[in-house]
Amino acid sequence: MSGSSNSPGPTAAERPLGFARLRDLPGHRLDRHGQPPLPLDCGVALGDLTIAYQTYGQLNADRSNAILVCHALTGDQFAAEQHPVTGKPGWWQRVIRSGGPLDLARYHIICANVLGGCMGTTGPTEVNPATGEVYGLRFPVITIRDMVRAQKLLIDHLGIDRLFAVIGGSMGAMQALQWAVDYPERVFAVVPIAGAARHSAQNIAFHEVGRQAIMADPEWCGGDYLRQGKRPERGLAVARMAAHITYLSEPALHRKFGRTLQNRAHVTYGFDADFQVESYLRHQGSSFVERFDANSYLYITRAMDYFDLAGDHGGVLANAFRGSVARFLLISFSSDWLFPTPDSREIVHALNAVAARVSFVEIETDAGHDAFLLDVPEFWRTLTGFLDGAAEQRGIVRP
Amino acid sequence: MSGSSNSPGPTAAERPLGFARLRDLPGHRLDRHGQPPLPLDCGVALGDLTIAYQTYGQLNADRSNAILVCHALTGDQFAAEQHPVTGKPGWWQRVIRSGGPLDLARYHIICANVLGGCMGTTGPTEVNPATGEVYGLRFPVITIRDMVRAQKLLIDHLGIDRLFAVIGGSMGAMQALQWAVDYPERVFAVVPIAGAARHSAQNIAFHEVGRQAIMADPEWCGGDYLRQGKRPERGLAVARMAAHITYLSEPALHRKFGRTLQNRAHVTYGFDADFQVESYLRHQGSSFVERFDANSYLYITRAMDYFDLAGDHGGVLANAFRGSVARFLLISFSSDWLFPTPDSREIVHALNAVAARVSFVEIETDAGHDAFLLDVPEFWRTLTGFLDGAAEQRGIVRP
Repeated sequence: MSGSSNSPGPTAAERPLGFARLRDLPGHRLDRHGQPPLPLDCGVALGDLTIAYQTYGQLNADRSNAILVCHALTGDQFAAEQHPVTGKPGWWQRVIRSGGPLDLARYHIICANVLGGCMGTTGPTEVNPATGEVYGLRFPVITIRDMVRAQKLLIDHLGIDRLFAVIGGSMGAMQALQWAVDYPERVFAVVPIAGAARHSAQNIAFHEVGRQAIMADPEWCGGDYLRQGKRPERGLAVARMAAHITYLSEPALHRKFGRTLQNRAHVTYGFDADFQVESYLRHQGSSFVERFDANSYLYITRAMDYFDLAGDHGGVLANAFRGSVARFLLISFSSDWLFPTPDSREIVHALNAVAARVSFVEIETDAGHDAFLLDVPEFWRTLTGFLDGAAEQRGIVRP
Repeated sequence: MSGSSNSPGPTAAERPLGFARLRDLPGHRLDRHGQPPLPLDCGVALGDLTIAYQTYGQLNADRSNAILVCHALTGDQFAAEQHPVTGKPGWWQRVIRSGGPLDLARYHIICANVLGGCMGTTGPTEVNPATGEVYGLRFPVITIRDMVRAQKLLIDHLGIDRLFAVIGGSMGAMQALQWAVDYPERVFAVVPIAGAARHSAQNIAFHEVGRQAIMADPEWCGGDYLRQGKRPERGLAVARMAAHITYLSEPALHRKFGRTLQNRAHVTYGFDADFQVESYLRHQGSSFVERFDANSYLYITRAMDYFDLAGDHGGVLANAFRGSVARFLLISFSSDWLFPTPDSREIVHALNAVAARVSFVEIETDAGHDAFLLDVPEFWRTLTGFLDGAAEQRGIVRP
């Protein structure tokens, strides 16, 4: 039976160790128990899929105002509300709000935890109903396309024929692009922010460092830590620290921290966090492990590494977009060195080559890749302006 | 008694576990046993200092042709010969050779393992003669200035009043600058390559990730691994992998690896090294641990983090160079994002402000920070040209 509910999810006995605190996560679930399994790129068909998602704002009568927001690597479905685990504001709460760029008075926002995630959607932390055991590394390796396939099931279930927009930053941008490629008739507008059509060698390298840090932690137990009542927290924290540097820019780090010492007048000639930037990084690592699962980190980074739209289309990126009827807005940030502007421009060129409707803006900021999560007025104005115009074309009434 | 010898170093009983293979390292030793201890920035005075060093080429009669080459974080004194541990060519063997930029027919090259290193110079892997135990974390935290103080003892011991040049890349550039600041009358020419006058927040952050990876490894044993017969190889490998990415450039990684798969036609949907760049990084990590010590990595990265010439001189970098009489050549590489060109330019401006003799060249290359180790013809020509001119002024005869 398939259905959406506000159920607290699997019972305590079904949930793995370590992530016990997540067992009572609030929110919607699409439970596809008994439905046909989801075929994945790796060849496996995934049965008993659960998708955890949140919605914000009202769906209008003709179901034309739905925006799917796709989260990034370590994001989740709690985009516009206090996070039930961390207690912090949602990662896009300042964007998704009444009067905001994703105006809750006008749009219906859907945000789902990605396949492979650890906030309720089926992933390596979940129990495989077929075996009664936690998946761990027995979970199949997934791709961005698989994530989007799962989202498509959710959108079908919600009775939405055509999304007004698919929007996402970073890995969310990859998903938005994949929607445009795989389901062109199901999206009216597509907004990939700080993204790319393929993961670069340098980005694969950074991901590999993170994975190696996790797998080097003896508490990882060959991926079987949940069954053994352990968690590779130190390895996961190191992975997060390395990744976090890539989300910022050198000028932003210099502006925020420089060489300022942490609550001390002089260096201590030791290995404590003498510098503020060290203390900040350590905090990033230790707070991350409280809300994220190490195996999920492996799977989701791998999905990003495998992403290569041109590779999927005979090496010609434009071919990926031949069926596109959507309007595109590409946004990049000038100081983003993880997904730099040329990555977005490459997509624009491919869209131009198939005469797609495409707008492109590089936002000047020193905030680096993380700019898509921050208050960057020009970014918000660009997003608002594009959505206003598209909404008018789509006949979505202004509130 | 102080003396230089080709002795094989401490006996097996004196050498720590794990690094047993290094006990028979060839080369010169300056053993300062019984001499006054070396005062360090942290306030400790270090007794019984040993400095392991190599020399290449002949010292001329008036001892005017000596060049001190300062190695980088993971380099060592075996700059221009087959490495006794790895069997590979020396890290600057293509630069230090007859007819090369550091012409062995003309110059006498000295290269010493830095204080805190693990190739024979006193550092955390060595036995503290006062206690008979391996230093480990009981070794005092050192600075770049301390490294240069130790080198100065060596140069005194060798009877060289004035070095013709001090040359180094990366951390070697920091040492070259420190020589110019602390012993201005002892250096005729100074060549800091791909360096900076202070370690940036981003660079401290990357070092901190590496240190956390090492300290997260249970085999690190709170720094006491050598006494316990263990080695934190996995943590050290992760530290190396993260650092190695910063030594390259995104274009170089793209050119060398792109998204090319490693000995396979298709991705495997797993966590093996599907991509060449992953395989390459893993190799960098695993080969590094065979030649480097984890605690040395902590100490030397810390010394770099603490480096801040302006901070040492009232916040005004120019003040550091007020006593300078040397000729300077600054070299940066256009694609180096670890020590980018503006870092070198800042030094040039400070030197200009005190009317120092300074030349500056930014070399166009996509090779990133590691360019100083590679065959980059314009770099070699620049180095050769500067040294030729300086040697003429110094009266060093052309071979």
